[in-house]
Amino acid sequence: MKWLQSNPQKEEKPRTGSLHTSGGIVETPNFMPVGTRGSVRGLSSDVLSRAGTEILLVNLFHLWLRPGENILKGSGGIRPFMGWKGPILSDSGGFQILSLKERRKVSEEGVHFQSPYDGAPVFLSPEEVVRFSGSIGVTIAMVLDHLVSPDEGEKKNREALERTLRWAKRSLDARESVSTEMALFGIVQGGLDPELRKFCAGELSGMMGASGATFDGYGIGGLGIGESPEERVSLVSAALESLPEDKPRYLMGVGYPEDLIQAVGEGIDLFDCVLPTRNARNGMLFTRSGRLIIRNARYGEDYGPIDKTCSCMTCQSYSRAYLHHLFRTGEMLGPVLNTIHNVTFYLSLMKEIREQIVIGTFSKWKHSMLEHLNSRGNHE
Amino acid sequence: MKWLQSNPQKEEKPRTGSLHTSGGIVETPNFMPVGTRGSVRGLSSDVLSRAGTEILLVNLFHLWLRPGENILKGSGGIRPFMGWKGPILSDSGGFQILSLKERRKVSEEGVHFQSPYDGAPVFLSPEEVVRFSGSIGVTIAMVLDHLVSPDEGEKKNREALERTLRWAKRSLDARESVSTEMALFGIVQGGLDPELRKFCAGELSGMMGASGATFDGYGIGGLGIGESPEERVSLVSAALESLPEDKPRYLMGVGYPEDLIQAVGEGIDLFDCVLPTRNARNGMLFTRSGRLIIRNARYGEDYGPIDKTCSCMTCQSYSRAYLHHLFRTGEMLGPVLNTIHNVTFYLSLMKEIREQIVIGTFSKWKHSMLEHLNSRGNHE
Repeated sequence: MKWLQSNPQKEEKPRTGSLHTSGGIVETPNFMPVGTRGSVRGLSSDVLSRAGTEILLVNLFHLWLRPGENILKGSGGIRPFMGWKGPILSDSGGFQILSLKERRKVSEEGVHFQSPYDGAPVFLSPEEVVRFSGSIGVTIAMVLDHLVSPDEGEKKNREALERTLRWAKRSLDARESVSTEMALFGIVQGGLDPELRKFCAGELSGMMGASGATFDGYGIGGLGIGESPEERVSLVSAALESLPEDKPRYLMGVGYPEDLIQAVGEGIDLFDCVLPTRNARNGMLFTRSGRLIIRNARYGEDYGPIDKTCSCMTCQSYSRAYLHHLFRTGEMLGPVLNTIHNVTFYLSLMKEIREQIVIGTFSKWKHSMLEHLNSRGNHE
Repeated sequence: MKWLQSNPQKEEKPRTGSLHTSGGIVETPNFMPVGTRGSVRGLSSDVLSRAGTEILLVNLFHLWLRPGENILKGSGGIRPFMGWKGPILSDSGGFQILSLKERRKVSEEGVHFQSPYDGAPVFLSPEEVVRFSGSIGVTIAMVLDHLVSPDEGEKKNREALERTLRWAKRSLDARESVSTEMALFGIVQGGLDPELRKFCAGELSGMMGASGATFDGYGIGGLGIGESPEERVSLVSAALESLPEDKPRYLMGVGYPEDLIQAVGEGIDLFDCVLPTRNARNGMLFTRSGRLIIRNARYGEDYGPIDKTCSCMTCQSYSRAYLHHLFRTGEMLGPVLNTIHNVTFYLSLMKEIREQIVIGTFSKWKHSMLEHLNSRGNHE
C-alpha cells in the first residue's frame, strides 16, 4: 500500500493524495460508508459504486460472529462475499469494548466477549485480529485498541492507552506473518487529554515490528462519542502533531459534514460515520443548504428534489413529496432512497473538497460551505 | 390504446401481442410488479426497469387515501410521482370491499369506507374511480367491481355480480367524460360458478357506454383467494369463452409461476401478483428448478448464486451464503436483493413464454418447465 500526497499545502494543512491498495486506488480525502455486518443498509454494491463509494468499512467483531471465518474464506474473502470489488477497511472490535461493556472482560492477553447473538464466548487478541483480517482478505486492517469512555477517569484512560500501545506493538509483530498485501493502521487513543493523544501518536509513529515494519497509516479513535467540537479540534491537532506527514490519517466514526470539512482543514485524510446511513433511515437528509426532516408536513406538497444541486439517483427521479409519502406509509423504498442520497451527499462533498484543495481554494470554500451547512436549523 | 395480437395460435390458445398505451408499448403475455401504495417494496424505478419491468400496478384506493389526489396532480400524475416512465395500471378498490369488510358499506351508489389510517370516511363510486384514475394519469384503469368471498353463498355472489355489471356500465359512461387517453378494463366476477363467469364475461363484452365506447380489455377478478387449481382453470376458461379474442385479458392477483404458465396456455395476456415481492421479503426465492427458503441452514455455506441461469443483479453479484447471512442478521439489503431476483424471475419467465409462443413451441416448453418448477419441494 502506498499513499501519495500530491499537494501538502502545509500552511493550511489540507492534503490530497491517494491510497494505492490491493483493492484499487482510493483518492483522499475520502469517506467510507459503514457496512458493519457486511452490508451498507439497503444498498447493493452496484448502487454504492454509483453513489461514488471507493472504499467501504466493515466491523471485524461482527463478521467474526456472523457469518464467521469459514464462510468468509469459503466465499473467497470479504470482498467477493459482499460483491464489492474495491478496497475494504475493517474496524477491529475496539469500539465493542466500549459499546458491549456488560459482555466483555479485558485482560492483557486480549478481550473475552459474550456473543450478543447467543452468548457464546469469543476471544479477540491483537494477534487474532491481524490474522483474521488477513485471512478474510481485508484491504486495510485496524489494530485492536482499548477504547474507554471519557467518564471512566484519568487512571483508566492512561491504563487503556498503555495497553493500546502494547497491543499495537503485538499487532505489528503479528502482521509480519500475514502473507497478503494487507495494510495495517495503528490507532491513537488518549481520551480527552491532548497530551496523552500527542504521546500516543508519537509512540505509534516510531513503533516497529520485529522485522522493522511500521504502520501504513493511523486512525484517531475514541472521538465522536460526546466531546465538544472545540475539544475534538484540540485532540485531533494534538495527535496530528506527532503523526508522520507522509502517511494517511483516519478520523474514526466522525461526523457531520461540517465536522469533516473542519477535520480536512486540520490534515485528516479518511473518515467513516454511520450518520449518513442511520439518519437517512430516520428520514434526516443532508443538503447543501442544511438538513431536512422528510416527515415534516411541509414536504408533503414539495415537488422539488431533496437538493437541486445533487446528481444522485434519488434527486434525479423523485420529489420530496414522494419521499414524504414513502416515510408516512412506512414503505421500505424510503430508507433506501434516503440512504442513496445521503451517501452520495457525503461522497460528493469529499470529491469537491479534493478539487478545492488541488486548485488551492479549499480555505475560502470551507468558510462559505460551513455557512451554508449551518443554516440547517432553518430547514427542519 | 391498441392491443396487437401477433400470433393467435387458436388451437393451443396462447397469444402474444402488445399493448400500445400512452406510457409505452407493453409486450404480452406480461406481468406487473405490485406497487400498492405507489412503490414496489424496496425497488427504485431504475432497478425495476433493469429487472425487465414494462408496466406497474398500483392501488387506487390506497393512493386516494395517501398521498391523495391533490399531491398526485401536483406531481404531474402518478407516473412522475413514482419516477416511473412506463405505463401504470390501477386496481380500483374492489378488492378492498373484501379485505376491509369491517370498514365498508356497499350501496348501489358505491362504497363507503373508513380509512384504515385514521377512520376518516371515504366514498368510492364507479364514476369517482374513473374520474380519479384519469385525473392522476393512470394508463389503464380497472373499473370498480363488487368482490365477495366464495363462502358468502350463491345469493350474495349473484347480487354482487349484477351490481358489478351495473357499475361497469356506469364506468363506461363516466369514461366518456375523461379527456385523457386512459384505457378502461371491465372486470369479470361470478365467484366459483363457471356459468356466472361466462354470463358476466358475455355481458361485459357486449357492453357499450352512452356514446358507444366499449372496454379496452378485461380483468378476471376474485381468483387467487382460495379456489383449487382445477376450479380456477374451469372458471378462467368459462370467462375466456365469452371474451373477445382481440382484446387483452388480465388474470388479477394470480399467482405462482406454474399458475401463470398454465393461464397463458388458456389465453391470458396479463398478470399481477404480490407473491414474488412478498415472498422475497420472507426469504422465499424462485428458481428454474423450484423454490428455496434462504434462511435454511444448508444455504449458509452455499457459494453459488440463487439460480445459475438468472441474469439478475443479485445472481450476478451475490451468493446464497451472503443472502442467508443478510437474512440471519436482519439486514435490509436482504429483502431488497431477494425482491430484485424474484421480480426478474417472473419477468424473464414471461419473456421466455413470449419467445416460445412466437416460435410455436410453447406447448412443449410448458410441460418441461412445469416439471422443473414442481420439483420445488426438493429445494426447501
